[in-house]
Amino acid sequence: MEDNYKVRVGITQGDINGIGYEVILKTLSDPRIVEVCTPIVYGSPKVAAYHRKALDLPSLNFNIINSAEQASDLKLNIINCIDEETKVELSKPTLQSGQAAYLALEAAAADIERGVIDVMVTAPINKHNIQSENFDFPGHTEFLEKRLGKGRKSLMILMNEHLRVALVTGHVPLSRVPELITKTDIIQKLRVFNHCLKQDFGIIKPRIAVLSLNPHAGEDGLLGTEEKDIIVPALKEAGDMGILCFGPYAADGFFGSGHFTHFDGVLAMYHDQGLAPFKTLAMEDGVNFTAGLPIIRTSPAHGTAYDIAGENKASEESFRHAMYLAIDVFGCRSRYKEAHANPLRKQYFDKSGDNEVLNLEEEEKEE
Amino acid sequence: MEDNYKVRVGITQGDINGIGYEVILKTLSDPRIVEVCTPIVYGSPKVAAYHRKALDLPSLNFNIINSAEQASDLKLNIINCIDEETKVELSKPTLQSGQAAYLALEAAAADIERGVIDVMVTAPINKHNIQSENFDFPGHTEFLEKRLGKGRKSLMILMNEHLRVALVTGHVPLSRVPELITKTDIIQKLRVFNHCLKQDFGIIKPRIAVLSLNPHAGEDGLLGTEEKDIIVPALKEAGDMGILCFGPYAADGFFGSGHFTHFDGVLAMYHDQGLAPFKTLAMEDGVNFTAGLPIIRTSPAHGTAYDIAGENKASEESFRHAMYLAIDVFGCRSRYKEAHANPLRKQYFDKSGDNEVLNLEEEEKEE
Repeated sequence: MEDNYKVRVGITQGDINGIGYEVILKTLSDPRIVEVCTPIVYGSPKVAAYHRKALDLPSLNFNIINSAEQASDLKLNIINCIDEETKVELSKPTLQSGQAAYLALEAAAADIERGVIDVMVTAPINKHNIQSENFDFPGHTEFLEKRLGKGRKSLMILMNEHLRVALVTGHVPLSRVPELITKTDIIQKLRVFNHCLKQDFGIIKPRIAVLSLNPHAGEDGLLGTEEKDIIVPALKEAGDMGILCFGPYAADGFFGSGHFTHFDGVLAMYHDQGLAPFKTLAMEDGVNFTAGLPIIRTSPAHGTAYDIAGENKASEESFRHAMYLAIDVFGCRSRYKEAHANPLRKQYFDKSGDNEVLNLEEEEKEE
Repeated sequence: MEDNYKVRVGITQGDINGIGYEVILKTLSDPRIVEVCTPIVYGSPKVAAYHRKALDLPSLNFNIINSAEQASDLKLNIINCIDEETKVELSKPTLQSGQAAYLALEAAAADIERGVIDVMVTAPINKHNIQSENFDFPGHTEFLEKRLGKGRKSLMILMNEHLRVALVTGHVPLSRVPELITKTDIIQKLRVFNHCLKQDFGIIKPRIAVLSLNPHAGEDGLLGTEEKDIIVPALKEAGDMGILCFGPYAADGFFGSGHFTHFDGVLAMYHDQGLAPFKTLAMEDGVNFTAGLPIIRTSPAHGTAYDIAGENKASEESFRHAMYLAIDVFGCRSRYKEAHANPLRKQYFDKSGDNEVLNLEEEEKEE
């Protein structure tokens, strides 16, 4: 990758009745954005114009194109993906807005597959109205895993500048969490997380903290045995694979003492354990990154926020961070690929154990 | 209570091998402390002298007394509660240090029962070495509930200036949490919490936020049914009793959006859900308050911290806050008692529903 290469960022419009266009337009209204990337919005020039008017951003002009190949540097490009008749009904989840969100997402997915865009940044969708024959997933992450994952497992990472949090279990009832915590799963998540931190964030030896399932890390078995029976053995096995993983740490003390600042990533056992402290710390700059897939996709950490749609109240901070993150990850991943493209084959028997560079097998397994 | 009444604060030494004395002595070394209260340390002049020397606080002098009645205003009083031969072994949980912690606690408990001290502030104990024939409890809270509770149920509140968090379930394995969440328990905790906020914090109509058990507040049953089946009916019933309770809120959004600032108290469903965000926000100034008991007891939010014992590294911030909180609560509770001591009996049928002052039954039930 040349140093002055401009990353082509595909932006999906998300639900047109929420704050998606608001955060997109506010982000793109800063003219400096075209200096760092080539934005291509997958959506509708008509709907964009509607929101632009509502937000009073007259100076923002789009270059309407038919396909991503026509995208012009130094311009804000937009591709129409939806029916001209699609109606905006602010603050309401409608069938039309769900369908529009899906069509934009599918168009961007097809383009990233063809390689005409480099990364995807997705505006929020509504998980209910987007469901159709074509879209039968709890959210973006699962759709992209199926559509573009080539059999790989994705891992959702919520992050800001100081903290990256991933989860072993996600959107499941709390009562099902204990049974879903398995050694295999913890190790699998640790492998994806570890590889992602190396490849996408340029961390040579990432340190990952793992939280405990039970309060006080089980307090020596008094408050639960999953630590002893599952988490500690999983950490041991992952450690033997060369992953620098530590813990299990009790969540309250871990976040309260600032201990989390010593790690490159934090693996929490369940949704609220990881995301409640994360969101407490990352008020506006939280970003969602889908790790583990061949493609790069980020999104803001917020939802459609129907309650303030069209009111010019939404902060574009998270969306802007999502765009910058996607661009940064693209750079990191390109450099990682170059650096690992053609390594020397192992020529000697290495006794020191520090055989990182020559261990092709490990990297290949992850690829 | 007269305005210039000085609250007699009983301070228990906690585990003598941890940072207990360090935070006590650092707090008491500020001469202004005797202007706001009369401190009485339950511990050992000898051990205190040992720690004072280690901390290099030569100017700090104790008034050694035999019983709390002899406590002198404008002096730092100390009562010996333990065997003269007790040895300090920094950073180790020993049988002797556990026994010393128990003896100080019991002496203070006896004195608060007799009414010769007004409030208790307890330095941290070690939950393992304090266990004996006399002390068979997971911690301070349970001991005090049994010893001084007169049959009432206590409720642990962790708080700082901006946030008060209480839990429905505490130190239990995560897998047992769902079965322990019952309507009766939620309502009982809400009643204690509500009464405490009125009586101990002077809030006339406290607003309490209740968190959900499942991620995204169960997302309409998709991610668990406890919200629909248990929490919502409990809130409804508590609301009918006149408690202003709201929710259930998803924990991550609730803390992330700053929504918690709109409430006087937050009731979380389980340990990490409430305490991880709380400790993230209240790094050093968190305080533990035992609500629901006839006596007033506070403690710092940290533990014995054996790893830094004797190193002069501990921050006394939390302990100082605990002392000030105990003094404040004593003032509030006294004023509340005076204000409610002798109300008029209900003389008329009140149609407006705003019968707060005259509704004696409700207050009496809580008392």
